[in-house]
Amino acid sequence: RISWISDVIVVVSPENIETMKTIIEKYGHKKATVVEGGITRHRSIFNGLKVFADNEFSSHLLQKPEVVIIHDAVRPFVEEDIVSKVVMAAKEHGAAGAIRPLVSTVIASAADGCLDHSLERARYRASEMPQAFLFDTIYEAYQQCTDYDLDYGTECLHLALKYCKTNAKLVEGTADLWKVTYKRDLYAAESIIKDNLSQQVCVITNVKETLAQVGFLLPESLKSQIKVEAISISLSKNDSHLQNIISGQCYNFVCVNDKRCAIQEIQELVDMLEKSNIPLLYPVVLISVHLDISENNSFSIGMEDLTMIKKFARETKKKNILVYGLLIQYK
Amino acid sequence: RISWISDVIVVVSPENIETMKTIIEKYGHKKATVVEGGITRHRSIFNGLKVFADNEFSSHLLQKPEVVIIHDAVRPFVEEDIVSKVVMAAKEHGAAGAIRPLVSTVIASAADGCLDHSLERARYRASEMPQAFLFDTIYEAYQQCTDYDLDYGTECLHLALKYCKTNAKLVEGTADLWKVTYKRDLYAAESIIKDNLSQQVCVITNVKETLAQVGFLLPESLKSQIKVEAISISLSKNDSHLQNIISGQCYNFVCVNDKRCAIQEIQELVDMLEKSNIPLLYPVVLISVHLDISENNSFSIGMEDLTMIKKFARETKKKNILVYGLLIQYK
Repeated sequence: RISWISDVIVVVSPENIETMKTIIEKYGHKKATVVEGGITRHRSIFNGLKVFADNEFSSHLLQKPEVVIIHDAVRPFVEEDIVSKVVMAAKEHGAAGAIRPLVSTVIASAADGCLDHSLERARYRASEMPQAFLFDTIYEAYQQCTDYDLDYGTECLHLALKYCKTNAKLVEGTADLWKVTYKRDLYAAESIIKDNLSQQVCVITNVKETLAQVGFLLPESLKSQIKVEAISISLSKNDSHLQNIISGQCYNFVCVNDKRCAIQEIQELVDMLEKSNIPLLYPVVLISVHLDISENNSFSIGMEDLTMIKKFARETKKKNILVYGLLIQYK
Repeated sequence: RISWISDVIVVVSPENIETMKTIIEKYGHKKATVVEGGITRHRSIFNGLKVFADNEFSSHLLQKPEVVIIHDAVRPFVEEDIVSKVVMAAKEHGAAGAIRPLVSTVIASAADGCLDHSLERARYRASEMPQAFLFDTIYEAYQQCTDYDLDYGTECLHLALKYCKTNAKLVEGTADLWKVTYKRDLYAAESIIKDNLSQQVCVITNVKETLAQVGFLLPESLKSQIKVEAISISLSKNDSHLQNIISGQCYNFVCVNDKRCAIQEIQELVDMLEKSNIPLLYPVVLISVHLDISENNSFSIGMEDLTMIKKFARETKKKNILVYGLLIQYK
């Protein structure tokens, strides 16, 4: 997803390695290498890092990077922006990590289960992921750290500070970086995905003059509410702009046509979508608007078109592409 | 909801007082008193406490309680069990509060925006609500605390410690005590409510022998999956066991009958549900099972019954009670 990342090391518990490999293959992830995790967080991360440095551990070493990013799979909504900020800060400071304000006050308990003291909330932050490090810094920290660190520690920034005297730069992250921990978080995650998918629509009109106006007015009226990409083309498989929009994870399309039967053009778009693999993850919505501005149109012919698109939609639904037809007769 | 709580003080920002009063009236909350909040958390809580002690502030003082519970409205899923534990602990120790394990490591940042140090996660806890205090303890703490405390503090347990030397007892809370903070938390909250509503079903059979067996077998087969209350009665408005089940927030009912037309009995249950006000919050599901074990039944009469229940269901739907009919012919 992020072009300047050269390798992705996925650290997985032994019993899930095969499942993970299947997922990676299914979605065509090219940069991913699967590594067996350890029994604690730090041991797993250390295993991941060894792929770049320790040829006892891995049969074919990957090229050692300047900066390595450490991230949790339970924080799926990480944006390129925060990854980039953390990496730039790590290049300058040796280490960097995302932080968030504390939602609750943090307290220390005494041995008797009573309050010992409470921390002033404004002085502290929750340490989140992603974090980034100069590879040599974090690898040295892991090589030097004790078994106690590996078994009971939770914070990579702490290791960099303790063993390499590197004070990590802290970067304010977004709310979406939270850790999907409880069952309720799965519902929350689903809602965020649905929200994101509905945030962008691509309006496609063909180049004729009568339609150009619709192609202009529709995006204008939509754009106060959502992100709109308007393109004016005859649909063809080689349109690179449309290809870019599709690979940018756009899930909603409106095609405006004035032809008697637009199925063929819609079919081409469906083919492009299918090849892109994006309908594998979530349903794509495609609205075919037939704008009939001819003099001699009749209601019954319109109905015939709709029946045809209904049949077509039944087929595309199996591919997770939901096609809707809208017929506008305008005398 | 909790019988041993004598008064509920709702502290609300000035602009929302009227809305809150409307809500309290609509849902028939009898113990609630609305109080105007301050500009910070501590000032709002202090205003709430004054209702019991300061007659400059309130025209009619409420009876001063021995123990007062402080809770956030943004934590809607508080169970009686944790409230009770916190109150008992407060009686003994003077103060008590719910805690949860930390989800993220907590770090302190230095003035330059870099990591100063990180806290050992296992030694610290997130301080959550509810909290409870001997009234005299927390009221004295608020009377003594400084403007700085009132404006920048966030932790009531801290005030009790600082001004009354009371080390609060910390009580492990459940995951559902989390603070509904972000938009995603609303989706999570909705999912928890739906989960809870679907956890309990009440199976009602009338007393005849032929049905008693169904009334026994159905709950038996359901109870491995959800909480089942089985009662065997002729539906009547005075059944106190059924009344208790309804007021205990049961939203799912199965009524098994062998009468030609069970609408009248269903109507009585609908009346009870309507009076209980529980359908105001969420839809109640009511499945009327007509078990026909007579010799001379015919399919067409069954259809007539279903048409009748369909019509009935259309009416009850307006009251947020969803009635479904199920006809079982058994020769």
